[in-house]
This record gives sequence, C-alpha cells and structure tokens, in this order.
Amino acid sequence: MKRNILLTLCLVLGTVSLLAQQVKSPNGNVELKFSLDGTRPTYEMSYKGKTVIKPSHLGLELAKDKHASRKYKETDLMDGFTVVDIKTSTFDETWKPVWGETATIRNHYNELAVTLQQKERTIVLRFRVYDDGIGFRYEFPQQKDLNYFIIKEEMTEFAMTGDHTAWWLPGDYDTQEQETQQTRLSEIRGRMKEAVNWGNSSVAVFSDTGVQTALQMKTDDGLYINIHEAACLDYATMHLELVDAKTTALTTKLQGNSNVYTPNPAPSAYPLPAPMTFVSHLTPDATGLKGAMQTPCETPWRTVMVSDDARDMLSSNLILNLNEPCKIEDTSWIHPTKYCGVWWEMIVGKSSWHYTNDFPSIKLDQIDWRSVKPNGYHAANNEKVKRYIDFAAKNGLDEVLVEGWNVGWEDWANMWKRDVFDFVTPYPDFDIKMLNDYARSKGVKILMHHETSSSTQNYERHLENAFKLMNKYGYDAVKTGYVGDIIPRGDHHFSQSMNNHYLYVIKEAAKHHIMVNSHEATRPTGICRTYPNLVGGESARGTEYEAFGGSRPDHTCILPFTRLQGGPMDYTPGIFVTKLSTWSDNPSWARITLAGSLALYLTMYSPLQMAADLPENYEQFDDAFQFIRDVACDWDDSKYLEAEPADYITVARKAKGTDNWFIGGKCDENGHLAVVKLDFLDKGRKYDCTLYADAKDAHYEKNPQAYTITKKVVKKGDVIKVKEAPGGGFAVSLIAK
Amino acid sequence: MKRNILLTLCLVLGTVSLLAQQVKSPNGNVELKFSLDGTRPTYEMSYKGKTVIKPSHLGLELAKDKHASRKYKETDLMDGFTVVDIKTSTFDETWKPVWGETATIRNHYNELAVTLQQKERTIVLRFRVYDDGIGFRYEFPQQKDLNYFIIKEEMTEFAMTGDHTAWWLPGDYDTQEQETQQTRLSEIRGRMKEAVNWGNSSVAVFSDTGVQTALQMKTDDGLYINIHEAACLDYATMHLELVDAKTTALTTKLQGNSNVYTPNPAPSAYPLPAPMTFVSHLTPDATGLKGAMQTPCETPWRTVMVSDDARDMLSSNLILNLNEPCKIEDTSWIHPTKYCGVWWEMIVGKSSWHYTNDFPSIKLDQIDWRSVKPNGYHAANNEKVKRYIDFAAKNGLDEVLVEGWNVGWEDWANMWKRDVFDFVTPYPDFDIKMLNDYARSKGVKILMHHETSSSTQNYERHLENAFKLMNKYGYDAVKTGYVGDIIPRGDHHFSQSMNNHYLYVIKEAAKHHIMVNSHEATRPTGICRTYPNLVGGESARGTEYEAFGGSRPDHTCILPFTRLQGGPMDYTPGIFVTKLSTWSDNPSWARITLAGSLALYLTMYSPLQMAADLPENYEQFDDAFQFIRDVACDWDDSKYLEAEPADYITVARKAKGTDNWFIGGKCDENGHLAVVKLDFLDKGRKYDCTLYADAKDAHYEKNPQAYTITKKVVKKGDVIKVKEAPGGGFAVSLIAK
Repeated sequence: MKRNILLTLCLVLGTVSLLAQQVKSPNGNVELKFSLDGTRPTYEMSYKGKTVIKPSHLGLELAKDKHASRKYKETDLMDGFTVVDIKTSTFDETWKPVWGETATIRNHYNELAVTLQQKERTIVLRFRVYDDGIGFRYEFPQQKDLNYFIIKEEMTEFAMTGDHTAWWLPGDYDTQEQETQQTRLSEIRGRMKEAVNWGNSSVAVFSDTGVQTALQMKTDDGLYINIHEAACLDYATMHLELVDAKTTALTTKLQGNSNVYTPNPAPSAYPLPAPMTFVSHLTPDATGLKGAMQTPCETPWRTVMVSDDARDMLSSNLILNLNEPCKIEDTSWIHPTKYCGVWWEMIVGKSSWHYTNDFPSIKLDQIDWRSVKPNGYHAANNEKVKRYIDFAAKNGLDEVLVEGWNVGWEDWANMWKRDVFDFVTPYPDFDIKMLNDYARSKGVKILMHHETSSSTQNYERHLENAFKLMNKYGYDAVKTGYVGDIIPRGDHHFSQSMNNHYLYVIKEAAKHHIMVNSHEATRPTGICRTYPNLVGGESARGTEYEAFGGSRPDHTCILPFTRLQGGPMDYTPGIFVTKLSTWSDNPSWARITLAGSLALYLTMYSPLQMAADLPENYEQFDDAFQFIRDVACDWDDSKYLEAEPADYITVARKAKGTDNWFIGGKCDENGHLAVVKLDFLDKGRKYDCTLYADAKDAHYEKNPQAYTITKKVVKKGDVIKVKEAPGGGFAVSLIAK
Repeated sequence: MKRNILLTLCLVLGTVSLLAQQVKSPNGNVELKFSLDGTRPTYEMSYKGKTVIKPSHLGLELAKDKHASRKYKETDLMDGFTVVDIKTSTFDETWKPVWGETATIRNHYNELAVTLQQKERTIVLRFRVYDDGIGFRYEFPQQKDLNYFIIKEEMTEFAMTGDHTAWWLPGDYDTQEQETQQTRLSEIRGRMKEAVNWGNSSVAVFSDTGVQTALQMKTDDGLYINIHEAACLDYATMHLELVDAKTTALTTKLQGNSNVYTPNPAPSAYPLPAPMTFVSHLTPDATGLKGAMQTPCETPWRTVMVSDDARDMLSSNLILNLNEPCKIEDTSWIHPTKYCGVWWEMIVGKSSWHYTNDFPSIKLDQIDWRSVKPNGYHAANNEKVKRYIDFAAKNGLDEVLVEGWNVGWEDWANMWKRDVFDFVTPYPDFDIKMLNDYARSKGVKILMHHETSSSTQNYERHLENAFKLMNKYGYDAVKTGYVGDIIPRGDHHFSQSMNNHYLYVIKEAAKHHIMVNSHEATRPTGICRTYPNLVGGESARGTEYEAFGGSRPDHTCILPFTRLQGGPMDYTPGIFVTKLSTWSDNPSWARITLAGSLALYLTMYSPLQMAADLPENYEQFDDAFQFIRDVACDWDDSKYLEAEPADYITVARKAKGTDNWFIGGKCDENGHLAVVKLDFLDKGRKYDCTLYADAKDAHYEKNPQAYTITKKVVKKGDVIKVKEAPGGGFAVSLIAK
C-alpha cells in the first residue's frame, strides 16, 4: 500500500497572527473561522458565503475521577482557555485505496491548528478544511497535568442556521437498525416515539431529541449538510442531541426496553446553547462514563460535509481522507468478493441455524452432538451447502457464506449467555473438511460466520483458535455478528470499549490474513482506509428487515447519504422473489422491484456484494441474474449522475482494470425518470449495452417482477432515459467492444 | 489423581416421609432440620443439642429481566413452595489431595435433598451434614420454566442465637486486605467506620453491617462457629449483612472512595428477619445484578462449621470436601514450592518495579526501551536476579520470584489503564534467556509474575502468548496480581464474572502445566481440590502491610480461622529484619519476633512458602535461617495442638514421605506458654529436636531479634514447654534418627 501512494505533498508551516483565525478550502468554497467566545473555543463554517454552522462552542466535561491526574482532575476542558499558538498548512496527496469506488483518491485540504492553554494544560484543536466540508478534532498532548482523564461528556456544538429537513435515526447506544425518519429539526421530538422501533433487541434511547450520525440534512435554500465522524478508534461513538425550543437541560436519561442499566451522570453545568443546536453525546460504558483517555491522544474527527449538489455528498472522500493511511503492509490477500450463502432461508424462517429442539437451553461442554435428535430443518447441512457451492461455481460467485454451521445456536440469542459459541465445533451434519475441499475443487471458498451473540468476552477467548481453524481450512473472510446485549454486562455496542473490541478483532484477523464483515457493530467512520481487511459491515437496517415486516421503498435511497458515509455496507441485496409467502410461511415482502434489486449492486457501494436470494429463485430469472454474474464490485472510477436523499440515486462505475462500465439507478415509492448522459465513456469507442429496467407496469408491491432486458450498442455522448417504477430502478452493463 | 482415590462409597437412596426432615451427622453431634415456614423453605442447625442456627429462611430474589424465561420471569424463588420429594443418603470416601496438610482426607456426611415445587418450577435444596458442620446449596434443574434467570439477591439467612463475638472484615466488593475487627455482633455497626481502611485502592462498602466470610465467631457458651462458602465457581462471592436492632431494611447502598458506580437495585420486598440474623449479600456486576444463571446449575455451598474446640475449626476439611474431585488428569507437574524473590525491597520502597522515570505515562507500542534512561534503581536486573538465584540454589529454595521484569510498570497502578502490560517483553536489563539458563544450571526455576493491574480484558487477550513464553523458558508457576479497579469498567473483584475470570486463568494455566498463585483475587472456597494447580493466593492482608504501617500482632492468629478456610495463602512470611528503617527509608516495621516469623511456616499452611526477606538479611541470621532451609511445605499429617482465635495457634506437621515432624507456635501481643505433648511421634523412635524460640526478653516491638536455638533428642511422650514472647512464637524441627 505505502509504496503505491502518489505523493504530491505540500506543507506550509508557520505561526500566523492571532487575528487570522480563519481558513478557506483549496477552492475557497468552504470557510472555517475559529475564535474564543470569552475563554471558550468557538468555530463557525460557511459554504460559498452561506453560513453552515453558526458560532458553536467546543469543549469536554471531565468526570470526577480518582484515577485522573491529581492536579486539575476535576477541571473541565470547557473554558478558561487562551490561544498560545496558531499554525496553518496545506496538504495535497493522492493515494490508492486497496479497494474502492475510484482508483485514486485526492486528499487536499488547508489546515488550522490552534494550541490552547488552560492554566498549565494545553490542548490542540485541529481543523482540516476541504472543498466539500471540514473535519476537526481535539488533540491532547502528553503532559504532566493532563495525563489520564475520564470524559463525562464531549460538548461539541453544531449550531444550525434554521429548521432544516433531516434524515435521522433515533439516538441509541446499541442499534442503528431503525427506519430513517424524515422531518424538520423542530419535529424530531414529536416523532421520537414513532421513530423508536421497540421491537429491536436492545433499544436504549437517551433523549427525546437524540439522533445518530451520519445525519443528512437539507436546508430550505438548497444546501446539503452531513454531520458524522471519522477515525473513531479507541473512543465512544458520537450521537447528537438537538437543543430545541422545549429543551431545558441536556439529558442523559436512558429509556427503553433494555435492562442494561446505565447510570446517568449529573447534568451539565454549562449554559444551554441556542435552539437548533446539536450537541455531541457519546455512548457511555457500564459506569455511565464516556471515555478513558491517556495522553497523547485525540478524539475522532468531527465532520461536516456541505454542498449545494446532493451528488457531492455521495462522491465525497472526506471521511476516508481523515483516516490514517493503510497500516497493513501486505494487502495482496484482500479482495473484493461476490458471494451467495445459506442465510436468507433462515432469515425468512424456512430453516434453522440450530440443529436440535431437544433442549430448553444448552451448555456446549455437556452435549454429545452425535447423539441428539436433529430437528430436520437445519440449513447448514452438507447437501445444502454443496448445492450453494455448485451454484456459486456455476455463476462465478467467489464465496459461499454458511451460517449455523457451528454448535451453539439452540439458545444463542438474547439470553445474555456468556459461553454461547466456541467457533470451532461444527454440527454433525456439516463436514467442514469435506465441504471446504469440495468448494476448493470448484474454485469457490466458504465464507466463515462468527455470531458472537454480543458475548465479546467469549469471542476474545476463542478468537485465536477460531482464526487458526479458518487458516487450516482456507477460509479468508469472516462475517461477525453482535446480536443482543453486550457481555461484559452493562456495556453498550457503541461504547469506547466495544469500539476497541471491534478494532481488536480486525487487527487480529489481519494477522491471519482474514477479511472482516462485521454485523451489528458500531457504524463505521472510514477506518477501512487504515485497515482495508474491514471489507464490509452492517450497522444499519439491511435486507433482512424485508423478512421482518419490510423497509420503506426509499430506504436504499437514504443509506448512501447516511450509513455508507463511513464505509461499505453488507446490505445483502438481490431479492428477486419479493413475496416471501410464495416459498415460505412468512407474510413479509420486500418493497422493491426486481430491476431495483439489480440497481443496488451499484447504488449501495461495497467491495463485498451478496446475491442474497435462494439459488432456485435466481434460476427462475436467469436472464436478469446475468447482471449479477456480470457486475463488478471494485472500481476504477465512479460518477454520481443523479441524487436526491430519499428520492433517487443514479451512479455509473468503471470496473477495475477494464474499460467496462456499469450503471445503477434506484428510486423511492414515487418512481423516477433517469436521464443518463454517457459522456464519461471513451471517445470513439463502442459498448455493448444491456439495460435491465422495470417494465411499464412494474410496481414494488403490485408487480415487482416485471422487468425488461434491452440490448444495444452505445457510444460516448448517447443518452439513456429509463423510467423507474415506484420502488424500482434499473441496471446497465456497458461492455467495451 | 483419580486412580489414587480410596473409595469406600456408600449411598443409601430412597424417598422418606415428609415429616422426617432432619438429618444428623455421622457421629450425631450436628443436626440439621428442614421445614417449610408456611411456604418458605427454612432450616435450623444444632451441635451437641445446642442451637447453632435458629430457624432461617432460604430463597433468592430474581431480577426483572427481559432475557429470562418468559414464564415466571419476575417471580422470586422465595415462597410459594411445597415439598414434593425428600431423599436422604450417606457418603463416606477417603481421597488423596495432590498436596495438603494430610496425606488423605475423609469425606463423610449424611445428606438431605429436598425437592421443592413452586407452580411448575422445581428447585432442590441439598444439605450435607458433617461431624464438624454443614454445607447446603440451591440446585436448579434444567426446566422449561426456569431456564435462564438473573439473581437480584440471594436471601440465605443465618439466624444467630445471641450476640456472639466475631472476627470480621468490612463487607467490600473489591478488597479483603483490611485488619480483622473483633467485636460483638451488636458492635459491628459502631465499628464499621474504623474498620474500613479507606487508604485501600478500591474500597466499596455496601452496608454498615456488611461483613466478609469466612466469618469466625465464638458464642458465650464456648461454641466456635464459622460461616463461609465452598466451590464458588461461576457465581458471585457471598458477603453477609447483619440485621441488627437498627436495621430498617436490607441495604445495598454503595459507599466508599471507588468511583466505580454500582446501581442499587430496589430494596427487598420480603419481611426483615429478626435481629442477629445474617443475610447473604452477593457481589454485583457492573449492572448491579448478582448473577446470570442457566439451568442446570447450582449455587456454591453455604457452610457453617461448628465445634466446642477451636482446633476443630483449623483441622476441618469440610470446605475441601464440598468441592468436586480433581479435574486435572496428570498432576505430576504440580509441586510444593519454597521460594525467595525480588520483591520485598520494592515493597519496602528501596528499589522499583519500573525501569525509567522519563515519562508521565507510557504506551507500550510507542516506546523504544533500549533508548530510554534507566532510573538506576530498577530491581529486576540481571545482576540482582543472579544474586537471588545463587541464594536460592545455596539454600535449597526451589524458585525465585522476579517482579518488575516486564515492561509497563511506569504507570501500571490505579490508572484504570487497559493496555497496561503485554506479559512477554522484558526490560532491557532483564535477559530472560540468560537468567533462565543460569537458574536451570543451578537447579532453580524463576517464578513468573503477571500483574494485570485488574485489566482482565487485557490479560485474557495476552494470556496464551504469556503462557507460551513461560513454557518456552521453563517457568512452571505464575504469581498473578489484580491491583486496582477492574477493566471491564464497572465490574468488581468478587463478582460472578471476575470469579469466572480467575477460574479461566487457572484452567488455561493447567493446559500449559503452570501453577497459579493469585493475588488480589477473590477469597478462595476450596477449589484447589478440583484445580490443584491453584497452589496459593493472597486475598487477605499479607506481609506487605508490614511495610505499609504494619499489621496487628494477632493478625496471623486470626487468618487460619478465616482466610485460610478456603485454601492456602501466599502470606510471604519470614521477615527477619523487622525494623525496615535499618536498611531503607521506610519507617514501618513488622509486628513479629524472628522466632515468630519461623512459626508462620507451620501455622499458615501453604504448599507455596516464601522466604520473603532479603538474602543479606538472612545471612545475618544464618543459624535461624536453617529452619527455613529445613522446613517442608507438604505434609502427610497435621495435628492442631492448641488454638484460640486471635490468641495462639500451635500445630505439628509430619513432612511428606518422611518420618520428620515440624512444629510451629504463634501468639498474639500477649505472649503464650505453649505446652506441646509429643504423643504423635512414633513409639520407640528418637528424634533430633531443634527448638527456635523467643529469647526471654524478646518482644515484637522492643526486641524482635532475640531468639534461642536449642538442640536435644526427644521421644514420644516428651513434653516441650515454650514461652512465646509478645508477638512471638517458636518453631521446632524433629528429625527422625
């Protein structure tokens, strides 16, 4: 990786006047101002002269803590600051991701670093100003008087200029699998109850105006604003709490159906900011505290992306750029992957992860699996897995995910059970050696599955042996899962300690040359740049919810603006038979047309793409499945052609190492007329174009499987117009002749 | 182990009348009665016709928990019971411990098993009645309606017959290193403030009448009663809360200088028992809950030992007998060990564990240890360790403990730091290969040290590699340490999850043929029978406190009645130069005479015995040190000759595989005249007797180093009278001629 980076580095260092505390982005569109409001650090931000963030305070409240440095141990990092140094610099570098939407990424920003002093303590506020937004973070140099400290709360403000439209998820310490809400900021409080999906396993809502990031907004004068974070490593995941007209104090009162009790720290002692201001709210650990810090250290980057063109929200690399370069020396074993798997039929309820119904609960060391009675519908059996391997081999899919292969599924979920899996013992009907040999003989790999049931202590105890087993049989990727409440008990999915755990697993996996696809983990913040073996993740409402009552048709037109800002999602697209009752007892149905399903392989960027439906369902529509066989999942270039949050997204991508392009367009329940100008093609070249479109009368509910396949030859400058049905979409392959 | 057990098993099974709910011990001295008080299970106990425990309720309150079995999930296991089955049986077996005070141990009891039904749920109360006490536990068979459950509190009562004298430690979730208090039960509340040693790192006192076990008591009519527990494996450590005249409700209000906040569950809804009743109080985890259970499972045994002779408290094997037989097949690598170590000089403050003073704090992966400046007083350096190895080799000591050998000690303690040690990287001045080779060439081993700083998550992550390093260099024992607040944060040293951790380490160590000596862990409950590689532990106020202000002279006359009930203690005796200021700047001093120090090798039974003082201090008193060279630490027989809690203990032990005996006597600040009848010697045999006694004017403060050494020949029936000085004692070796 390192040797491939194209460096065009340019650093201008020097101390400037204390008055010149503002920095513009390289093209001048974005401007960042820093000042002291009395003694409180304050920033503001504008885009093309329009205010994006009004003056907003920066600071952290520290917990009273016997472990902290003795001096100032109870002094917050909120006020009492003077500016002692200011440095500006410029950085311009182009780097090559191991996998991604484009072959190279330019990282070009102007930087302002403000050193602040509070008595004997110093901190640094570092701002990076890009053409499409800003990132800033708190840095804590090593010093005698700020050595160890505990964060009670980070108090970073984001003061909005008005009552914007926002696409938000309710703030929650453990899940981000709710449906996105679209409201004005002032309507968040009123919508909260409806927004919380109480059916989820571990809902822990902390405030009536708490929301998650990435938070996508749109102003009435046409600005798109997105608040998120980058490089959240050994730090708690950030939420945002909106101060609105009814707010009387920042609240940390936990409510929900979780019985994990989190102590509520005392309320903030500082004045409330003005209404329409978001204040950061970190995920606590079991003690209610938000972070244990040792200097030298820093917070993640807090990011504000902005543009007057929604497409820029999708093409931005700001979050990746704010992450550290790749730390894995040899990345040759990391590869994009198209896969199918023994999964959807269990999600739908037709077969099971577990092997027997003999016991109300099990203890792994007390069961002779050879002697128990099989339930007869255990999915991960030799015959079925071979069927999937055959299907993958025939259709050019790289891997086959198999869930439910290992003992422990009889009572795995929501029991707060510690010793739930050992990750190495297969059920009697899963012959691990035979199946891996069989897969290898067909040029296919099996994709490992490690459901942890959120018992991270148990997973860490077994991790090394689990990875050794994978190495032994040739598995090179693992899907991990974190369903249910965390063990160590009292902790939350998005806390500092859990974020450390996820990263620990990624690093240990890298030592074994294993790629990771982490489900129910914390939402990503671009760390796949640094650890590109993190090839995917869930951390949002995925396709599985189509079997749990369904997701709104606009869901996949929102995710690229929100969840995908931090990294690719293992959305598991490709449901062709959307009415599940046609092959199961499940009355749920997917709110998407078949052509729309194809579009997701483009609009939901990921180097890891599943063909999630059953082989027999694909075999009914083999002409449409051709697109899934053909489509790439790694790219030299990407062009976002059309975009509006929750309405539509159209994107064209150039397949890695080829001259072929693929185009996908996805829309909401209202349909969309996509107009695709092929001006990105090579001049003078001809392309075999195959268009997979919704048929005229297609509709995500009434007629989802009505599609047309059209072939023609196209060239640069041609225009393709496609009518997308309600809840529909289209896909195009352009093969260079 | 298994093949060595002498089985004289006798089981009498059968259902008896519901009225016959009482069982006597084999010799009839102890009687246990079970009954229902309405619908509440109740037990009482007597000894030689005297009541020991008045009718006391048994039961558990369950937490409201979404993870529990749906049915009855909020129903306590407190009342509503009927008796559906009663079984009695007799058991008599003699087994051989891998190491111990005697070559064989008889396990002889009568058992009563009561099956109780509460609607569709059943539990079993199992009582074992021994001649020296009882053990009982709750058993939860696997059943649909009691599958998973969370314990809010165990409500086992121990109703006392009067205002007994008790030797107690304040109830605490994290430490048992306080001085023992001696008061009437009614005086506990008034003494609590004084009893709590607020200087300790993690004091978490939950009640003004909360005490720890083993709790030793004495009644006014001369009964000795001891309450403790056996086989606490995957369960929280039990404390006792006394209901006294001022109690209005059972309290769980946590107080102390710990900033680990533990949520307080709602108070009990059941009526308070009568004053002078102890109620069990389990150690909570970070959520405030006391136990996560999955059936089939059971609680630890709750034990009540009783006798009218204090010596029976010390010779009892009741707690070992209630533990499961040895689970380690090959125990050939487990051996008693006498050791010295690089330790006392750091405890006293003359040298350091850490290597450099260069940094306010360190991050292990960011320091080049070769380039930092040594502080010049790092103890674990090659030269010093070789000196200790030479000393051990010359004096027949088996091993040399070396603390501070590995990087991380610069900021190890009380910082709540997660990644504190890696357990494999030596400081630059500790040549691990050379020193192990050197030790081996002298017939000595180095004893490994793993201080975890209570960051158990970090320790578990490194455990396998740490043990591999030990195997590589030939270490066969590790001293572990748990100083400071627990990580995962919010947890407590004595919780269910931490008890699981300690056991996990013991089991993993056994796989590597490593013996464990665990400091600051939970107090033991006899599990060394099941896992005899647990050769020692601290879990009480050890010799180190003699460098921290001192312990009372009677301290070592209490510990065998309390802390040692559950297993051996690594007390680290043998301080010859008690005034530390003679060789350091430390003004503290050990409250013991030199002869008294020798006695501890007998009175404080342990298969792991340290000669804790410096080699140069021993070299000043080489004639007295001869006893430490000679004394065994594994025994074929032990005879407790004299005993009174906090006053004196005299014991004779026969060295394993020999005909030699060793005798030790230790007394409190008042002195004691020991009268030792040698009626346990072989008839007709002569013994070379060496008596190490306090000199006439010896005194633990004024004249601690005044001792006499007398040699004579003795035979069975002879009587040795020894005057023990205030804070003194004596030691005798009897070598068969």
